[in-house]
Amino acid sequence: MAHDFDPGPVSEPFASLAQNYPGADVYPANSFRVEWGPIFHRGRLDGSARLLVIGQDPAESESIARRILVGEAGHRTQGLIAKLGFNHSYLMINTFLYSVYGQTGGTTHENDPGIVGYRNQWLDAIFAANQIEAVVALGQLASDSWQTWSQTANGKKHSPPFAHVTHPTQPESASGGNSTKLRQLIEAMLANWNQALAQLHPQISNPDTPGPLVPYGSTFKQAERVEIPEFDVPAGLPEWMRSPNNWADRVGKSAAAMRRNITITVPSGVV
Amino acid sequence: MAHDFDPGPVSEPFASLAQNYPGADVYPANSFRVEWGPIFHRGRLDGSARLLVIGQDPAESESIARRILVGEAGHRTQGLIAKLGFNHSYLMINTFLYSVYGQTGGTTHENDPGIVGYRNQWLDAIFAANQIEAVVALGQLASDSWQTWSQTANGKKHSPPFAHVTHPTQPESASGGNSTKLRQLIEAMLANWNQALAQLHPQISNPDTPGPLVPYGSTFKQAERVEIPEFDVPAGLPEWMRSPNNWADRVGKSAAAMRRNITITVPSGVV
Repeated sequence: MAHDFDPGPVSEPFASLAQNYPGADVYPANSFRVEWGPIFHRGRLDGSARLLVIGQDPAESESIARRILVGEAGHRTQGLIAKLGFNHSYLMINTFLYSVYGQTGGTTHENDPGIVGYRNQWLDAIFAANQIEAVVALGQLASDSWQTWSQTANGKKHSPPFAHVTHPTQPESASGGNSTKLRQLIEAMLANWNQALAQLHPQISNPDTPGPLVPYGSTFKQAERVEIPEFDVPAGLPEWMRSPNNWADRVGKSAAAMRRNITITVPSGVV
Repeated sequence: MAHDFDPGPVSEPFASLAQNYPGADVYPANSFRVEWGPIFHRGRLDGSARLLVIGQDPAESESIARRILVGEAGHRTQGLIAKLGFNHSYLMINTFLYSVYGQTGGTTHENDPGIVGYRNQWLDAIFAANQIEAVVALGQLASDSWQTWSQTANGKKHSPPFAHVTHPTQPESASGGNSTKLRQLIEAMLANWNQALAQLHPQISNPDTPGPLVPYGSTFKQAERVEIPEFDVPAGLPEWMRSPNNWADRVGKSAAAMRRNITITVPSGVV
């Protein structure tokens, strides 16, 4: 059976963008894990994207798979866009090229000109090359990214349907290990997502999989966390790196040690 | 400064080869670490390769960088091919797509038809698309791979200068932690490499960097372990993944735990 894979940013204008990314002079190392390199995207860079998703920043598993939104947030996002009818014709970029370090790194630097300028080059290129029918922003910083670009000369030329939704792992971040609170926050998030879906779904003209909108209930069903497609990742990447199982962690006895570490564990049952 | 990167196997015939790789039905999981996925190559897949290097199998760092020969063996190999005048126009493939597990996994399966057949497809494609001026095999299994292909119908059409050299980390494998023995084995390996260089160097018509052959001494000079070029790895990969520093290990309290683990540690001084 053929294993499709994602060629990555090999064609212009994305090849040049991937060659000319900002480094630690633009993304300060005290606020971003620049040492793990930039992670640019997931999805179609061949002009066939019709849905744009803006995420926040890459986590551990993204640093290994070299594609964004492949971890828990990615699986939930994959389910969200499936409800809009997309299983192929999407493109995802992040607010930040590098993983945010510390509580305030993202908000402190969200308006830094070098960060905004490079991200806006991607948005310019995406809208020049694709017929984008809708934009979904995951969380406040992603929404701010979109609003910032919308006010540029190029941004003013485009006004696709847009929804700012609760970030897919906000419930985990905000519940601090309290399972009751986690359940409440997931329920609230899914209600928020249902609102966005109700707004966007009627405005999608060319979904990959047409059909009626099936809203979320109060919890995630198993089928609503969708495996990352093989055609979204580099050639030869093992299947478990696309699975909903956690396989990458930052391990260490100090903050400094954790920052230097990513520990990969093949999920049980694979070997 | 632009960061060149390697697009990988995005064009034919290599795209189809990367889509149609053999799995655990061909590479038995008791002899190969199939769970980490196949790693195909390093170097040029655009028809510009003039030197072919055949290695053995991917190690830890290769499983992360998704290119072969990026660790210690890779840095030594990069220095070896530099002495032949190559810093860009080369292509490296391995005898095995997956990391060998156990002492005898490689020799047991080296003649398995599925393993040989797929590797021969790569060799067919490489020789059809490139003007290969010389072939270097790293170690016995790599040499056997070459001899096996040479006896096929396609292989018989090509007879480039060929050298079988001692595998670049054979001294470490064979010295068992004995530093005197290690020094002796490195000296012997470099003498072996000098013989191969003396044979091949006069036969290279179109090196990237023409010049007289500078043989090895009895130890590696620092400049003889050459950093993996940025244009050999995927977009955005951090620089330290191409450095001569070790950054990936298999960690665990049992063989089973080690098999499931790769622990990445950013080298000191980077963060």
